[in-house]
Amino acid sequence: MIKENDRVLLIGEKREFFVRAGEGDLSTDKGIIKLADLTGLDTGDIVKTHLGVSFKIRIPRPVDFFSYAKRTGAPMLPKDIGTVIAYTGMNKKDRVLDAGTGSGVAAIFFGSVAGFVDTYEIREEFSKICAKNIADAGLENVRVNAGDFLSVESDEKYDVIHLDMQIEKEHVKHAYGLLKTGGYLATYTPFLEQTFNVMDAAEDLFSEVVCHELIGRELSRTKRGTRPSTRVCHTGYITICRK
Amino acid sequence: MIKENDRVLLIGEKREFFVRAGEGDLSTDKGIIKLADLTGLDTGDIVKTHLGVSFKIRIPRPVDFFSYAKRTGAPMLPKDIGTVIAYTGMNKKDRVLDAGTGSGVAAIFFGSVAGFVDTYEIREEFSKICAKNIADAGLENVRVNAGDFLSVESDEKYDVIHLDMQIEKEHVKHAYGLLKTGGYLATYTPFLEQTFNVMDAAEDLFSEVVCHELIGRELSRTKRGTRPSTRVCHTGYITICRK
Amino acid sequence: MIKENDRVLLIGEKREFFVRAGEGDLSTDKGIIKLADLTGLDTGDIVKTHLGVSFKIRIPRPVDFFSYAKRTGAPMLPKDIGTVIAYTGMNKKDRVLDAGTGSGVAAIFFGSVAGFVDTYEIREEFSKICAKNIADAGLENVRVNAGDFLSVESDEKYDVIHLDMQIEKEHVKHAYGLLKTGGYLATYTPFLEQTFNVMDAAEDLFSEVVCHELIGRELSRTKRGTRPSTRVCHTGYITICRK
Amino acid sequence: MIKENDRVLLIGEKREFFVRAGEGDLSTDKGIIKLADLTGLDTGDIVKTHLGVSFKIRIPRPVDFFSYAKRTGAPMLPKDIGTVIAYTGMNKKDRVLDAGTGSGVAAIFFGSVAGFVDTYEIREEFSKICAKNIADAGLENVRVNAGDFLSVESDEKYDVIHLDMQIEKEHVKHAYGLLKTGGYLATYTPFLEQTFNVMDAAEDLFSEVVCHELIGRELSRTKRGTRPSTRVCHTGYITICRK
Repeated sequence: MIKENDRVLLIGEKREFFVRAGEGDLSTDKGIIKLADLTGLDTGDIVKTHLGVSFKIRIPRPVDFFSYAKRTGAPMLPKDIGTVIAYTGMNKKDRVLDAGTGSGVAAIFFGSVAGFVDTYEIREEFSKICAKNIADAGLENVRVNAGDFLSVESDEKYDVIHLDMQIEKEHVKHAYGLLKTGGYLATYTPFLEQTFNVMDAAEDLFSEVVCHELIGRELSRTKRGTRPSTRVCHTGYITICRK
Repeated sequence: MIKENDRVLLIGEKREFFVRAGEGDLSTDKGIIKLADLTGLDTGDIVKTHLGVSFKIRIPRPVDFFSYAKRTGAPMLPKDIGTVIAYTGMNKKDRVLDAGTGSGVAAIFFGSVAGFVDTYEIREEFSKICAKNIADAGLENVRVNAGDFLSVESDEKYDVIHLDMQIEKEHVKHAYGLLKTGGYLATYTPFLEQTFNVMDAAEDLFSEVVCHELIGRELSRTKRGTRPSTRVCHTGYITICRK
Repeated sequence: MIKENDRVLLIGEKREFFVRAGEGDLSTDKGIIKLADLTGLDTGDIVKTHLGVSFKIRIPRPVDFFSYAKRTGAPMLPKDIGTVIAYTGMNKKDRVLDAGTGSGVAAIFFGSVAGFVDTYEIREEFSKICAKNIADAGLENVRVNAGDFLSVESDEKYDVIHLDMQIEKEHVKHAYGLLKTGGYLATYTPFLEQTFNVMDAAEDLFSEVVCHELIGRELSRTKRGTRPSTRVCHTGYITICRK
Repeated sequence: MIKENDRVLLIGEKREFFVRAGEGDLSTDKGIIKLADLTGLDTGDIVKTHLGVSFKIRIPRPVDFFSYAKRTGAPMLPKDIGTVIAYTGMNKKDRVLDAGTGSGVAAIFFGSVAGFVDTYEIREEFSKICAKNIADAGLENVRVNAGDFLSVESDEKYDVIHLDMQIEKEHVKHAYGLLKTGGYLATYTPFLEQTFNVMDAAEDLFSEVVCHELIGRELSRTKRGTRPSTRVCHTGYITICRK
């Protein structure tokens, strides 16, 4: 059920609005919606403009933040986020550290899955955008930190550490120290050289190091026929290291 | 902290044992471990055999059930499970239905992520194996049902429905009826013909239908050099349909 | 050695011109070149403009016609043309039939490899463009025919038949009749449905039917690092059928 | 038409024999064939055993040498050979140098396409096997040389140089010196490190350097359905450098 200040998607015909329940009005080409009317409603309910045009309510899911989160650069794609979640077995009991978080899109996914997420971003302006996006997603178990991963100290160890940043040997070593036995470091590196660095640094420390490359394609099905689409298909390498 | 009857991994040099804390002994080539000694310990702790050889304790994570769950056939690979989780944005608040669950490996991942999972398997003997695996994983939020997906009725709608089975048009239609607005149907189909069936049936019902193919490769790094490995790289098509 | 009317590439700094040796002048921003001066020269020789600026001569190779042939649509990519040549073992002794030739780019490659090529294009305006491109490539062993593949009759059988067109069962059957024992039919089909048609029609006739899909990527190496590029990577399916 | 000493394939039901026309007999489980009877016959003709069982004659094509050439290791796959032929535009007028030829399978393809091929193999025992395979393929335009590529000197330049060997910077430089303007160096390297070496060495010398990776899959179509097969899909990187 929608509470005041919750983010809400209003889905009309060929148009979508990302709003906040509460004060104020949304003006659309199909009429005006009072945002206070949204509180108390739920996903699937209908709200009408003053002209009587219907919009369907959708409570945003993590995937919606791909479209609506404020960006600081290209976020990780779902296929890569899914790979991190699945190969680390990230779950509700986990304490996760996510460094190099950018606008926090991956952190939104991790926060929806894990028990607790500490997210670090060294560039302060990005960290602020991340904090805003996390708040919009309504995630109270994600702590946004502006700071350098190498300076992280923690008495309580992490189950999963995810790094999406320029990674040097010392980052891999530092991650090892912060992990529980059986826990995972997952790194995302777009270039092969960095990937080699990670694999080499991890090889001597971790019990298992596997680097994955995922080539994703969509299957396009139209009246002319069905074929793999030719859209972007490589993004980066994901290295999964188990302590 | 390990309680009686919990599943535990004991990691020694080049050997691993998947045991249950509680009564009885584990006999290894390095000596005997009393399983009652495991209760109260935690991941990373050490237990010794009567010959003084150390084994490290690891509380199993979902990924460990790939190796240790009893199987009924080839389970979905993590890359495909991750794709379902990420593209549906599966999360702690979700009510999930998983049909055609087989030995329940995907259900173990979904159960570790989602709030509640109903899992259906029509073949009774598989359903029993699934129940055993789910119990081993200690997941109390997964309900194992022996039955046909088409006979599922529910007053409370689902956020995500995952189907890994021979899918006909009626399954897609039935799934639509069981989903919340904004919720997702995710299907896994190894063959193109079934994939076409799903896409065609979903096209008229759902607001968005995207079929993903993921070609996964590992990067092999040895003294001779680095190269993509040539291991299995295609498994199936994952179609994501949003209501 | 360049003869009158031969096509020639003139390579200057950051500019390239595709000209014809013989009458007339080429005006460039670096001065004028008399095209009669090109006859008698060879690949690697230098020609100068009236302002003394050097251009290097290159006698065009089949690959240059990707850039300079007049087009009628998107031509087959070299990776796909190479697949046809290699999997059929196309060679100097071969009599080849190429139908659905479009602007004739694949025919230029086949003509440079095979003994003789008959190329068919049903759309007369495309056939004319093809004839012009073939003439530009200086290939006297390629005969350009405007007509329907299904109407082709030949006492002398072919070693290789290549079809790049909307293919029905009857095309596969007709191709079978025109081939020598041990010869190959190679079809290029962008869509899966057509590919299925070809495979099904060929299955009962040919001794061996293999369908190839080639996902091609370039490796991009810059100062930032090395990574697979994300450019177009699928074009079509190539089915190789041996009589 | 088959001449004495030519290699011939005899195709029976579920059996194939690779023989030499001329003296002697072939004993099969279906009876004896006199090899002298093959001379004067042609592809598609029938020869019978003394028991009256028919075998169809097939004059081998380059692709047949994948199955029947004596091997020294894993040969390049047709997809990679085709890529070299297509991206260099290899043709009947070309003078080609192929170094690191192994058993000569790629050289058989190049020899069937190009005007003349010089093939180098530093290991003498491989060079002998290569010479035997080339002779079996009946290619009189391929000269087999036992020797080191770096020691090759030639007044007449090459149109295409293909290297399938451990490549150092000096090999790339040496190849540059032996090529005509507009000609191509094509290298085949299984590992990324070598690929980087080639690209870096070529970058400063050649006018164009493009590295291709080809992931090849077969489409498997059975009664159960159609799906990409999961067989080997990566072999190596092919770098194409234009002088």
